Amino acid sequence: MATTKKNVAEDTSGDGYLTHIAYDSVVFGFSGEKLKILLMEYHNTGFFALPGGFVMQEENLNDAVRRGLKERTGLDNIYLEQCYVFGDVSRFKPEVMKTILYANGHNVPDNHWLLGRFITIAYYALINYEHVKPTPDALSDSCTWYDVDDLPALMLDHKDIVTKALQTLQANLDRKLVGMNLLPARFTMKALQQVYEAILGEPIRRTTFQRKMLSLGILKRHGKHFSGSANKAPYLYSFKK
Amino acid sequence: MATTKKNVAEDTSGDGYLTHIAYDSVVFGFSGEKLKILLMEYHNTGFFALPGGFVMQEENLNDAVRRGLKERTGLDNIYLEQCYVFGDVSRFKPEVMKTILYANGHNVPDNHWLLGRFITIAYYALINYEHVKPTPDALSDSCTWYDVDDLPALMLDHKDIVTKALQTLQANLDRKLVGMNLLPARFTMKALQQVYEAILGEPIRRTTFQRKMLSLGILKRHGKHFSGSANKAPYLYSFKK
Repeated sequence: MATTKKNVAEDTSGDGYLTHIAYDSVVFGFSGEKLKILLMEYHNTGFFALPGGFVMQEENLNDAVRRGLKERTGLDNIYLEQCYVFGDVSRFKPEVMKTILYANGHNVPDNHWLLGRFITIAYYALINYEHVKPTPDALSDSCTWYDVDDLPALMLDHKDIVTKALQTLQANLDRKLVGMNLLPARFTMKALQQVYEAILGEPIRRTTFQRKMLSLGILKRHGKHFSGSANKAPYLYSFKK
Repeated sequence: MATTKKNVAEDTSGDGYLTHIAYDSVVFGFSGEKLKILLMEYHNTGFFALPGGFVMQEENLNDAVRRGLKERTGLDNIYLEQCYVFGDVSRFKPEVMKTILYANGHNVPDNHWLLGRFITIAYYALINYEHVKPTPDALSDSCTWYDVDDLPALMLDHKDIVTKALQTLQANLDRKLVGMNLLPARFTMKALQQVYEAILGEPIRRTTFQRKMLSLGILKRHGKHFSGSANKAPYLYSFKK
C-alpha cells in the first residue's frame, strides 16, 4: 500500500517533551494461572515493544508514566515502582524509531529529537488483570497480554528490561508484599500461592507456603468461598491494611 | 573581588552532553565510628551538593557515574548501585545553576542547556574510607566527608536524595550484604556490628548480632587481632567470595 509521507519540520527541541529521556513500563497481570505482561505491536513493522513514552516539559516523570498507563489500561492508582535506568550507548539505534515513524507516515529529518539517543527509565506496574481494557496508542495495532515465559522477540533492549523487572519483582515479593496488587480484594490461599509460584517461576510446597503466610500476620480471614462441594470450600483472605 | 564574566556562546545542544540528564552520587564511607558521605562546596556560593555530573553523548550512563567518582575519589571498581530517579518539575530551579556558573566567572544565556530542566539519576556508592583522597572538581572549593546525621543544608533536593539512598542501603543491608564494601578485607565482629549500627541508626545487641552473622555462613574466621591484652584479642573475619 502506497503511503503519503508527511515531512515533519526539523526540530531538535523536543516538541514540548524532554529530549533524550524515555520511560518503559513492564505491566504485570495475573490471569489466575500465568504471569503476564502488556506488549504493543507497532503498525506495519512487526516490532513488539513495552508500553512507553516521553516526559512533557511541565510534567513530573512519575506522572508521565501514570499518564501512559492510564491511556493503555484505563486504570488510575496503579501500583508502580521505578526499577532501573537503561543508559548504555548500545541502545541508541535511530533506524528503529525511523522505521516506526516511516511506517506511520512520518518522514523525519536525521536530527529530529525522536532519532536522538535516549536513556529509558524502566518501571514495573502490578494490576488486577480483570479490571483492564488494554488499548493501543496512535502508533500501535495492538496492546495485548502475553505470558512472561512465552514472549515474542522484543524491540531494542526491551527483553532485558522485562528480565530486570521480573528480578526486581521477585526480590520485592516478601519485603514489600507486592503480590497483593495482582489479586482481587479477597482471594483463596491457593490463588495467593499461584501468584507466588508464577512470579518465582517454581512450585512451592503448599503446607510450607501456608504456614509462612499465616505466620506473617498480614492476612485477615473471611468466610468460605462456596463454589463446589461444601466441605471442601476454602477460606477467603484479604490483606490487612 | 571583581570578576570578568565570560559570555558563553548560546548553546542548547549540550556541548557534547545529553541535555536534561544529570546524576548524583551518595558516596558512603565508614570512619570506624560514623557513617559519612562526600559533599562538595561550590566556589563563592555557600552551596553544598552531592558529587554529580552529566553524561557524554558517547558514554554509557553507568560509566559516566564511575568517571565522576574516579575524579573525586581516585578509586576504580567502586561498589555502585542505582537508587532512584528524581524527576519532578519542582526541582527545576535554573537560578541555582546560574548562581554557581556566575560565581565561577561564566555568564550564560537563559536558553543555555545547563539552565534547562534536569532529571537526576541517584546512585549510592560504598567505599573503603581509608583508601580515598577526596578531590574537588573545577567548580568546587572542597570535597569532604560529613557525618550522615550532621549534614549542612544541601542544594536543591539533595537532602531527599541522601534520605532515599540511606533507605535503599538499609533495605539492602541483609539481602545484598552491602556492609562488606565499607570495611577493610579483614575486620573484627565488633567493626562489622558498628557498620550495621551506623547504617541502621540504632544499637544492636552484641550476642544477637554475632549469632545471626555466624548463622548466615558468609564469614571466614582468621587469626586473632592482637592489639592490647592478649587474652581479649578478638578474631578477624573476612567475607567468603
